[in-house]
Amino acid sequence: MTTRARRPAGRVGQPPLALDALQARRDRLRVRFAEERIDAVAIVALPNVRYLAGFTGSNGALLITGDREILLTDSRYQIQAGQESDCDVQIVKGSLTAALAESAQRLRVLRLGFERNRISLEDYHRLYAGRGRTRLKPLAYFVEQHRVLKSPEEIATIRAAVELNSAALEQALRRYKPGTTEIELAAEIEYRMRKLGAEGPSFETIVASGPRSALPHARPSRNEIVADQLLLIDMGATVAGYTSDMTRTVAVGELGAKGRRMYQAVRESQLAALNAVKPGVPASAVDAAARRVLRHKGLDKLFLHSTGHGLGLEIHEPPRLGRREAIRLEAGMVITVEPGVYFEGLGGVRIEDTVVVTPGGCEILTPTTKELRSLV
Amino acid sequence: MTTRARRPAGRVGQPPLALDALQARRDRLRVRFAEERIDAVAIVALPNVRYLAGFTGSNGALLITGDREILLTDSRYQIQAGQESDCDVQIVKGSLTAALAESAQRLRVLRLGFERNRISLEDYHRLYAGRGRTRLKPLAYFVEQHRVLKSPEEIATIRAAVELNSAALEQALRRYKPGTTEIELAAEIEYRMRKLGAEGPSFETIVASGPRSALPHARPSRNEIVADQLLLIDMGATVAGYTSDMTRTVAVGELGAKGRRMYQAVRESQLAALNAVKPGVPASAVDAAARRVLRHKGLDKLFLHSTGHGLGLEIHEPPRLGRREAIRLEAGMVITVEPGVYFEGLGGVRIEDTVVVTPGGCEILTPTTKELRSLV
Repeated sequence: MTTRARRPAGRVGQPPLALDALQARRDRLRVRFAEERIDAVAIVALPNVRYLAGFTGSNGALLITGDREILLTDSRYQIQAGQESDCDVQIVKGSLTAALAESAQRLRVLRLGFERNRISLEDYHRLYAGRGRTRLKPLAYFVEQHRVLKSPEEIATIRAAVELNSAALEQALRRYKPGTTEIELAAEIEYRMRKLGAEGPSFETIVASGPRSALPHARPSRNEIVADQLLLIDMGATVAGYTSDMTRTVAVGELGAKGRRMYQAVRESQLAALNAVKPGVPASAVDAAARRVLRHKGLDKLFLHSTGHGLGLEIHEPPRLGRREAIRLEAGMVITVEPGVYFEGLGGVRIEDTVVVTPGGCEILTPTTKELRSLV
Repeated sequence: MTTRARRPAGRVGQPPLALDALQARRDRLRVRFAEERIDAVAIVALPNVRYLAGFTGSNGALLITGDREILLTDSRYQIQAGQESDCDVQIVKGSLTAALAESAQRLRVLRLGFERNRISLEDYHRLYAGRGRTRLKPLAYFVEQHRVLKSPEEIATIRAAVELNSAALEQALRRYKPGTTEIELAAEIEYRMRKLGAEGPSFETIVASGPRSALPHARPSRNEIVADQLLLIDMGATVAGYTSDMTRTVAVGELGAKGRRMYQAVRESQLAALNAVKPGVPASAVDAAARRVLRHKGLDKLFLHSTGHGLGLEIHEPPRLGRREAIRLEAGMVITVEPGVYFEGLGGVRIEDTVVVTPGGCEILTPTTKELRSLV
């Protein structure tokens, strides 16, 4: 895997592509320049660069002024940037942020907004050192607040990612046989995703058997999947940049009464949370609905995380469905709903769907059954 | 995939494990407290947290004082942190950095070092806001400068990752047949890695056929691999946290004279660079050796990146083998050597090995042949 060269900087003009959606996104940002009292913005978070400029490389930044749009990257991406983006491309040696500050000065930007929730301290220092007469204005969630509401095209892409993910699970489970290890099942899942057309997993696939399922973020081990125990699988597939996220917990052979009770409790909790999803309710209300069910069963202290999160170009996006999240749900948000219960030494259960908030409540995108199923 | 809950903070004492290597690493850092005029350090970069505390979760920070070692994480990792690390574990709701600042105050830390090359602007602000009487001292590459020299155990792990990676390529290429797409071959490669025991790819596997091989960082496409063209594969497997990195360019069927000449030029360039690797030489000398060969052939302007990089717990670590890198190589460094040449419209060639610097020069860890091979 290559790293950047330090080569003389150059500029490469690119013919604009027919990428109306990208242009519209950038123009929606520009509308907010006046209220923020800025005349340009520096975008440094890669998912935001992708959202606004279409560029998928691993090193990029974007300068948007009133009438200019400059994508900064390094020479490895010279050809690709021109193919993917309708912005002007500036090839940079060394720090993109330093080069961006220079370009802002050259374009006589007076007030430059920057992503204070995304920038590293070093990049901030580079921006500051190169600011010249440009004044810097910190902005929080400047692009993310647009990304939280998905367009019909984005929802269609997430739906495709969710459905591909579910199909991959079915194919992989069909290949399960006694003696399969956690790593082998994870490998099979990711292979099936890829073969079905995913760019890759949206995060490290979790396959956790028996007591290991009590670790909410267990890494698959070389252990064989244990009979008569819980098996927790948390997986997502990325399609055209968009993520998906699903957890299913299944029985391997026969489950004891305690395991079955845990499963039913989490399932009820998840359904209660899904029922609470609708436009206008605070994110915390969905979390509260999940916790209420578990509290009645004396299990709420074993629910170690929040109830869900937004997803899109990133696997974790706003809103978070946590205890103190006042943000209100809106139609067009895409979120996960995923309560879980974890007994150290015994195992854990988590059930997770990806859903889109609709005017009337929510549509569950995930087609995989939530009946307790048993592998043999 | 779960997110953090906001739950009341708690502390969980953990019995120390027999993890002498981790303790030795932390003690080596402590030796430098005096020269840096600090009495504690805040570690926020996850690979550095892993290096020092053994913790592999996705959310962690570490506070090391003269006599205390506190690993901060969230409730999802409560069990795992105790199993993996010999440090005290502090379970935190919300920002780890804010909690770390609080703990530093409580422990009466007067001068707290922090990783200025790793911290985000927001985390820096949280550290600053919570500092109380603690003075903050920015440190650059405080942990990375230790990580650059690998221990025999680390080299053994990287060797295992490199060999696994090479084995996966052979297995995957055996399954190539006309009509295979780039994505299918990438899927096969990653599946074979996993089956052989890797935790996953060390980065997005690159499989780029024909003109797409001229994009140094092409993402695999749904295109069929083209006959009588170049095929570039850049891949790495992660084993026990350690990465590997290899690029091979092969012919699919019969290559034209131009493609063969490019291949031989890059191969000569790579051998020249390998010959330049030895303790005491500046990293830039290796880069210069690679470029010199290509310049004689009039190809140096098509070499779009630097000649290599260190690797270890991260796929890109110091040193970088670039034009202006004065850092001198030392025995125990593990680096890639990977010149490449890219003709827009025609294709690209890159050849990359992972090598360890030895007292006498270097040992090439990558066992895969560099003869121009042809798939049929």
